[in-house]
Amino acid sequence: MSELERFGISLPKDLLCNFDKVITKKGYENRSEAIRDLMRENLVEEAIEEDKEVVGTVTLVYDHHVRDLSDKLTHVQHDFHKNIVSTTHIHLDHHNCLEVLVLKGKSGKVKGIGEKLISTKGVKHGKLVMTATAKEIG
Amino acid sequence: MSELERFGISLPKDLLCNFDKVITKKGYENRSEAIRDLMRENLVEEAIEEDKEVVGTVTLVYDHHVRDLSDKLTHVQHDFHKNIVSTTHIHLDHHNCLEVLVLKGKSGKVKGIGEKLISTKGVKHGKLVMTATAKEIG
Amino acid sequence: MSELERFGISLPKDLLCNFDKVITKKGYENRSEAIRDLMRENLVEEAIEEDKEVVGTVTLVYDHHVRDLSDKLTHVQHDFHKNIVSTTHIHLDHHNCLEVLVLKGKSGKVKGIGEKLISTKGVKHGKLVMTATAKEIG
Amino acid sequence: MSELERFGISLPKDLLCNFDKVITKKGYENRSEAIRDLMRENLVEEAIEEDKEVVGTVTLVYDHHVRDLSDKLTHVQHDFHKNIVSTTHIHLDHHNCLEVLVLKGKSGKVKGIGEKLISTKGVKHGKLVMTATAKEIG
Repeated sequence: MSELERFGISLPKDLLCNFDKVITKKGYENRSEAIRDLMRENLVEEAIEEDKEVVGTVTLVYDHHVRDLSDKLTHVQHDFHKNIVSTTHIHLDHHNCLEVLVLKGKSGKVKGIGEKLISTKGVKHGKLVMTATAKEIG
Repeated sequence: MSELERFGISLPKDLLCNFDKVITKKGYENRSEAIRDLMRENLVEEAIEEDKEVVGTVTLVYDHHVRDLSDKLTHVQHDFHKNIVSTTHIHLDHHNCLEVLVLKGKSGKVKGIGEKLISTKGVKHGKLVMTATAKEIG
Repeated sequence: MSELERFGISLPKDLLCNFDKVITKKGYENRSEAIRDLMRENLVEEAIEEDKEVVGTVTLVYDHHVRDLSDKLTHVQHDFHKNIVSTTHIHLDHHNCLEVLVLKGKSGKVKGIGEKLISTKGVKHGKLVMTATAKEIG
Repeated sequence: MSELERFGISLPKDLLCNFDKVITKKGYENRSEAIRDLMRENLVEEAIEEDKEVVGTVTLVYDHHVRDLSDKLTHVQHDFHKNIVSTTHIHLDHHNCLEVLVLKGKSGKVKGIGEKLISTKGVKHGKLVMTATAKEIG
């Protein structure tokens, strides 16, 4: 974590009061922490838009009985092995698997790999979520 | 606007530096203004989740040549006239209209009306966006 | 509306059954209508990403007592008058106004104007939502 | 996978043509597959809103040098061990860790745990994404 800098901001009392209620409910210990999180969320969105380095998490639900599906997914993953950091596999029930992949790379690249995996025939549902790497969010 | 309150927050230097770059790009005049907006965005999300009073804007694209469509839309609007504040109609081209409605009410109610309008047969595309009323966002 | 084309799709029975329940609840009259809407939603997202022509609706909440705010907003609107199709103004309460603007242009341009309006000092909350023009969504 | 059911839908030619372009770009092999995905996405959103059983993936970025942070995160995880299916830990750089947790439970519960983890002091950024379990999405 880089050096801390302190500064003052002024806000309408009502806004502050409402904000305090919400962050208490969410479990934040103090205002600074909650504001830092809002700022980082904002920076992450920017990093994604500007094709900067991001970390992506892809969550896939699929039926492992679908012919060739595991092979196809493994195949895609090997094509992009440089961008795939880890894979976690969970057995949801007799038929269904959950696979969570962590990807790293430019946001455009990560998005492309995510879409390729999610659109593979037999994948029932998939979601990609992107986070900036530590450098981008201070 | 309620009375102003001033307080200090501390942030990692890198985070602040990145944040300043982004808000300058977006056209904010100062940090307080940008942080206030992030907080309000957060409060609006909460208000929506908790079925509080909100203002909703519904944007509809539809072909006014589709039989009975205008009638149906007018019909829905009259059913909920207490929640409909205004309607703006724009002629996109020979066939297509854009209609923007401003709604007011509990978020659940506003969402229901929005979905009803958007799902009407012949409406090509529709979006609902919700904003808190002034009271909720200080 | 362009000529209709009919084609068949096959789906798992359970999926179809769950989908039918949801669209009935939302008020759709039939499956085709609901699927068309999902497709259009998808096309709109693509159009936005690829900087195609879109229609944008900007919703602003602001306090008209803030000095110079109305002037500043009018100023921005005149700078981009070619992209601003209409403006609707609503008096929320003694202090607060809601303004809904309809914009037209490439998605990047529309986003830029929206951000400029939303980030204006004194605007309490703002949201931009984009819809494709009729051409893009068939 | 449950038994397949086949049915016909009719769409405007232009819409279909635009849709085909987009799904080809995204890597779908055929229209049925792409439509199934849109439907499931829709069902997942419904399941989340109605507090049904979901699977959630929480992605956290944090500095493991922050005092007591790992302990606190572990603590939260043990409090909710019944809802936590797996945890994957990745070393981003000297200071920063990425942790991906897979959660299972009612959407409200999963959201609560996710928010608790994300709001923990020292967590730089976090995101929660929810997927329905296989049963909900056919």
